[in-house]
Amino acid sequence: MLNMPAGQIFALSKGIGDLSPATRREVERAYIDTLAVLCAGWNEPVTRALRQTYPHVRAPWEAVSPSDAETTALTWGTAAHALDYDDVHMTSVTHPSAVLVPAIEAVARLVPGTGGRKAGAFAVGLAVNVGLGNAMGFAHYEKGWHATSTIGAVAAGAAIAHLLDLDERAFRSSLAVAAAQSGGLQRNFGTMIKPLQAGLAAQAGIRAAHLARSGLEGPGDVFTGNNGFLAVFEGPPDTRLELDIEAAVAGLSRKLFACCYMAHRPVAAAIRLHEAGASDLLADQDTGVEVEVPPGCLKALTVDIPAIGSEAKFSGKYTVAHALSTGRLGLSAFVPESVASPEFAGIARRVVLRETSTAGEAGVGIDRGSVTVSLVRGGSVAARISIEAYPGSPAAPITDAALEAKLSDCIAMGAPHEKDLAARFRSMAKQFARNA
Amino acid sequence: MLNMPAGQIFALSKGIGDLSPATRREVERAYIDTLAVLCAGWNEPVTRALRQTYPHVRAPWEAVSPSDAETTALTWGTAAHALDYDDVHMTSVTHPSAVLVPAIEAVARLVPGTGGRKAGAFAVGLAVNVGLGNAMGFAHYEKGWHATSTIGAVAAGAAIAHLLDLDERAFRSSLAVAAAQSGGLQRNFGTMIKPLQAGLAAQAGIRAAHLARSGLEGPGDVFTGNNGFLAVFEGPPDTRLELDIEAAVAGLSRKLFACCYMAHRPVAAAIRLHEAGASDLLADQDTGVEVEVPPGCLKALTVDIPAIGSEAKFSGKYTVAHALSTGRLGLSAFVPESVASPEFAGIARRVVLRETSTAGEAGVGIDRGSVTVSLVRGGSVAARISIEAYPGSPAAPITDAALEAKLSDCIAMGAPHEKDLAARFRSMAKQFARNA
Repeated sequence: MLNMPAGQIFALSKGIGDLSPATRREVERAYIDTLAVLCAGWNEPVTRALRQTYPHVRAPWEAVSPSDAETTALTWGTAAHALDYDDVHMTSVTHPSAVLVPAIEAVARLVPGTGGRKAGAFAVGLAVNVGLGNAMGFAHYEKGWHATSTIGAVAAGAAIAHLLDLDERAFRSSLAVAAAQSGGLQRNFGTMIKPLQAGLAAQAGIRAAHLARSGLEGPGDVFTGNNGFLAVFEGPPDTRLELDIEAAVAGLSRKLFACCYMAHRPVAAAIRLHEAGASDLLADQDTGVEVEVPPGCLKALTVDIPAIGSEAKFSGKYTVAHALSTGRLGLSAFVPESVASPEFAGIARRVVLRETSTAGEAGVGIDRGSVTVSLVRGGSVAARISIEAYPGSPAAPITDAALEAKLSDCIAMGAPHEKDLAARFRSMAKQFARNA
Repeated sequence: MLNMPAGQIFALSKGIGDLSPATRREVERAYIDTLAVLCAGWNEPVTRALRQTYPHVRAPWEAVSPSDAETTALTWGTAAHALDYDDVHMTSVTHPSAVLVPAIEAVARLVPGTGGRKAGAFAVGLAVNVGLGNAMGFAHYEKGWHATSTIGAVAAGAAIAHLLDLDERAFRSSLAVAAAQSGGLQRNFGTMIKPLQAGLAAQAGIRAAHLARSGLEGPGDVFTGNNGFLAVFEGPPDTRLELDIEAAVAGLSRKLFACCYMAHRPVAAAIRLHEAGASDLLADQDTGVEVEVPPGCLKALTVDIPAIGSEAKFSGKYTVAHALSTGRLGLSAFVPESVASPEFAGIARRVVLRETSTAGEAGVGIDRGSVTVSLVRGGSVAARISIEAYPGSPAAPITDAALEAKLSDCIAMGAPHEKDLAARFRSMAKQFARNA
């Protein structure tokens, strides 16, 4: 049974040992990033609907203990994904930390003695998330599943089973109960249910481990067979997972800008132009902005000149204009006053975006090739910057300074009156990543 | 939008009017049957695991109000399906009442003013369950989905949305949040997770309606489109549902015997032989028992002579022997003393089951053709009975007397020390089916 996925996952949990300093550092950064975006999303309409339904749930930075881990993780997980500003793992097409961190944190606060296992639980959950996501392949996503939610539930079931140090029978049952709850449809994208689906996965993982601990038994391996998780969710019916904690933790991408991923490279190039002083050229109304991206990279940037913040996130013109003009693209770029600003709109109208006609040597794919932003005057290029790696991705990791800036920005949005919150988050992150 | 499933379901809810007396009577019987099997399942290992995880949940016959509708419905729904003795709808391949009754009852006890809407909520939920199940077709089940759970979640979301009288926007969102939680794998069959999946559907429906009432919004129609519920769960991508309350309520099959469905017709024939006095012939050790069934009807009867109760449920020989010998096949047939009884085992060894070689005019299908049980002595038939309709099915509905007997049997199993429980269940059923 060890060569079946459930056996592999249990073996990973039991054999984990101490995490390396580099892994612990990334766990700490994942926690900071997740708490930051959770805070920024705390007053979003979807989070308010959850807080109204479950009024006993408090914010994770409030001193009180949660009274109920399941609804707490549901609310926190949803809030963390509410702005779609949380971390991403590219090849598994999932947002792992918005599911895992809330689930682990909610349970650990209720179950004495689990504090030292939090970082390990995150590492196990992330390795399962990445390993299972990669095993499923793109057919899973293509079918219409929300992989963050389907795979996230199983990953959370593994993480909480590790946190609670379940024995083998219960650990395998936790995976099966989690898989029994796997769901979440792309049909719900563009609505409040998208972030909810992340929260549901967090909650499902907790429910799974708790029930398994109470003696609720499932099959020894829920993944294999004609009617198992892999086959039903469009994966290969029998497979070995690649479970690699170091690689999984190092493979997270963290968003630097609160907008559609496809705008991230253009925005990063625009910020570098600003930093180089080139944005002064925009004072001349005849200066144009040209953005060249590889084929396929405009697909989701469907908005021309936005009227509201949620549209601005999908406008290549607006995001580049704002970044050129201010040198940043934080949450305040999407408040009504910014979107309505004649200055940004005036520059946005001078931006032209186009996909390059050939893929070149780099091939096709939104993470391939490079993006170039040029300032053009009288037919000649006055300034130009090219960006290859997605900012925040493993190839161009978010710096500690940028993560600090994101944290401050998120706190200013979600909890502006809380004192010393950034320091508290940093302290909570250290405690989360502590390796007992 | 009205011709989309979500619009059709909302229109059904708003246009329902008073239920006919015949429909109300069937709702009352569905309630009695569900409470009976829930009671019988109250001490099963799966229910005990839930009660340990959620210790605040009380039995539905206890006078206290539930403190939390979600975990209450999870526990009650699981208990109702724990013995696989609850009602079934054949063409949609679902167990509807074990999902719907617990969800409705748990919410109605917490929300003042909903009592008069319980029967309507059940009727709407059941019509959605049957309509959606029929629309999905067998491809859904064939894929490996547990339809009771996938479709049940949406049906429960509709039922609770009706119970809470949600407006159109919230009603449609309730369907979408329910669909976001649809899941449940046949891989978990044969384990405690099968009944859990029914409970999860009940819980999901409540969560959906509560969140939608709090303002959590989803798409106007979650069912249609490439990534909608129908397409992702193997249904036709665009369809109109057939939503017919009267037909749905009249279409329920209720189990008379606590064993695999494939044994029901042989057992019914055996009981009629017993009633005709023919079982006296078994005193002669040379009397054999021959059971002839249409092709395919032995598929799930995989156990020859059982050693334990859970095996006995899948033994055609044992169930027929017990029914011939005692004239009944209640829950006590599956306790250790019965299964170990030399008398029943002795008769069971004389039973021969075979599938008839041709389907004949009736065609193939487990609900087609007829089943014949013969007592044979010296090569000649001494007694013979044939059964065409499944006992308890719409073609041979359970009688009130048989339902009473089932109720008493279930109470003796699940709550033997509770006084007057049958009378309380009948009174609760009348209150449930009341049409305000």
